[in-house]
Amino acid sequence: KKILVIPGDGIGAEVTTWGKAVLEKIGTDFGHTFTFDEALMGHEAIEATGTSLPDETLAKAKASDAILFGAVGHIKYDNDPSAKVRPEQGLLKIRKELGLYANLRPIMLFDELLDASSLKPEVLKGTDILFFRELTGDVYFGEKKRTEDFASDLMNYNRYEVERIAIKAYEAAKVRGKKLCSVDKANVLETSRLWREVVQEVAKRYPDVETEHMFVDNAAMQLVKNPKKFDVVVTANLFGDILTDEASQIAGSMGMLASASIGDGTGFFEPIHGSAHDIAGQDKANPLASILSVALMLEIGFGLKEEAKKVTSAVDKALKAGYRTGDIADSKTDKSKILGTKAMG
Amino acid sequence: KKILVIPGDGIGAEVTTWGKAVLEKIGTDFGHTFTFDEALMGHEAIEATGTSLPDETLAKAKASDAILFGAVGHIKYDNDPSAKVRPEQGLLKIRKELGLYANLRPIMLFDELLDASSLKPEVLKGTDILFFRELTGDVYFGEKKRTEDFASDLMNYNRYEVERIAIKAYEAAKVRGKKLCSVDKANVLETSRLWREVVQEVAKRYPDVETEHMFVDNAAMQLVKNPKKFDVVVTANLFGDILTDEASQIAGSMGMLASASIGDGTGFFEPIHGSAHDIAGQDKANPLASILSVALMLEIGFGLKEEAKKVTSAVDKALKAGYRTGDIADSKTDKSKILGTKAMG
Ligand SMILES: CC(C)[C@H](C(=O)O)[C@@H](O)C(=O)O
Ligand SMILES: CC(C)[C@H](C(=O)O)[C@@H](O)C(=O)O
Repeated sequence: KKILVIPGDGIGAEVTTWGKAVLEKIGTDFGHTFTFDEALMGHEAIEATGTSLPDETLAKAKASDAILFGAVGHIKYDNDPSAKVRPEQGLLKIRKELGLYANLRPIMLFDELLDASSLKPEVLKGTDILFFRELTGDVYFGEKKRTEDFASDLMNYNRYEVERIAIKAYEAAKVRGKKLCSVDKANVLETSRLWREVVQEVAKRYPDVETEHMFVDNAAMQLVKNPKKFDVVVTANLFGDILTDEASQIAGSMGMLASASIGDGTGFFEPIHGSAHDIAGQDKANPLASILSVALMLEIGFGLKEEAKKVTSAVDKALKAGYRTGDIADSKTDKSKILGTKAMG
Repeated sequence: KKILVIPGDGIGAEVTTWGKAVLEKIGTDFGHTFTFDEALMGHEAIEATGTSLPDETLAKAKASDAILFGAVGHIKYDNDPSAKVRPEQGLLKIRKELGLYANLRPIMLFDELLDASSLKPEVLKGTDILFFRELTGDVYFGEKKRTEDFASDLMNYNRYEVERIAIKAYEAAKVRGKKLCSVDKANVLETSRLWREVVQEVAKRYPDVETEHMFVDNAAMQLVKNPKKFDVVVTANLFGDILTDEASQIAGSMGMLASASIGDGTGFFEPIHGSAHDIAGQDKANPLASILSVALMLEIGFGLKEEAKKVTSAVDKALKAGYRTGDIADSKTDKSKILGTKAMG
């Protein structure tokens, strides 16, 4: 398998280093041949080439079997709303170009980290949510306009875009807890009313799966109130962006969560966390989300279940043994077991 | 003062009854003359007149000094995405017609209810957030299109719309904790980049207020992680809808939270909770959010600070005495002190 590593910005390089190392180890142990290439994206790419997604990166991406991605983003652009070239454009463009319309974000709880959440352990315990966030449509990709005094972004969906992500979500629900919650804002948005119509139609093909429709404001609330009640959640790009970040924090383990973006071809695997420039290059970043992204690559990208399990149980073992990076350590952690990126990797 | 009561749907009638009763009592005690009228909106209005905001209601609203509103919404429409007439249209139309561009949602903690939240008390304690949600722009009011296979909603802002809500938020921040967090998605949306530009400009006029800009996904996370860090939050209509509901749940007191919508003229005061048809007419609804909406009406609408304080301290006293409605009771509540709507009112 040909794997393209795109470290990107900030802590991206440090964490993907360990994702890659884990892949190499799995390759050796299980007799698979993984070959690696590397490419630029984001702020690093802008500095080097003037664009956040160089043609060479895109060509390499299309030619690979899977992509291991770090993060993009830089504070410089955040404070300058008028910047024309921005690191995030590269990420959005590669999602679109590779047809990565389904972003899977499993919200997993590690029992050892229950105390790291702001939520009471009894509210949290047993939470296991799989988000399907639509990733190549919505207001992210609609027509944008800007004059001195006016700005607009077109929120829009086509029927087939909703249908294909709904099917992916139902297929997953079928082999999980048989519950699907579709989140929209159908009391206000036309886009959401189309969304709800299509999900209602797809639902008929999955009579064994219990379907619930929820408004996004209510979903933001229910995730805090009773996260356990969710199994599979399917939602649009923008709502998914907000709700998955909220949910990751609920799980108390932002630095632990991985995501898989899939669609027509090559899969794209990345941590949920961002570029975290404030700790970049200091051997402080938590590499576990990148390592768990590799587990998703093995399972979802390559269908290698046993290999994936080996990775997640290695992570579990490290946590059980008391090892922590700074972000997941708490007052009860044995100080001698707080590790840097390298040692944890 | 002429006050229009719009009970709306579901539990709206039960809860506004007690809001009104409190206003009458304040009038008597402080020697103010409050006169009342009543009007239809939402599902009730559709059933009676075919439209969710009858002309008569709008005329009465414009002629009044303040509006005490209950809730709108009905499950019937939620499950029928193709319904052309919907209860929520009335609410959106009255917001627009009355120019209610600023929706203030204070996230208050009642010490007695700390245990009702999913969050750990130590994370929560000390939280005191005032949201300014823009209420008459954004994707709520942009052009909508729909064909069989396509739907769109235009997200858009004009400079003056952002400026006036930013000013309101800064004015509040100045006399509160002197911290303002503006929430947007400027790494993706043109609308958000205009938003950020304008807030950066307005910020210059308030050098004493510390300004932070935060992406909405990060804000959804930070609200769970560390709600205490927020003072005034200002954001667009859609993001505000999602984040304030999330925050109300964090405060553990959805049934307790009130909101004030203000703008060019008459103010509009309502609970954050919805129509809750499942418990309507059963003497189960919590009237405290409607009563606290009256406190906001007195303070923000009429500038009657002492009167407002009298209302909030009455609520506080009832809670301190151990009285609860079902939604805010917990395992430690004295069963004999769990009251219905009427008794709590
Ligand atoms: C960096 C940004 C464009 C991106 C998004 O909003 O999709 C990020 O927040 C994410 O969730 O992957
Ligand atoms: C009922 C609905 C249209 C409304 C909104 O989205 O504004 C509600 O959720 C609110 O927050 O007041």
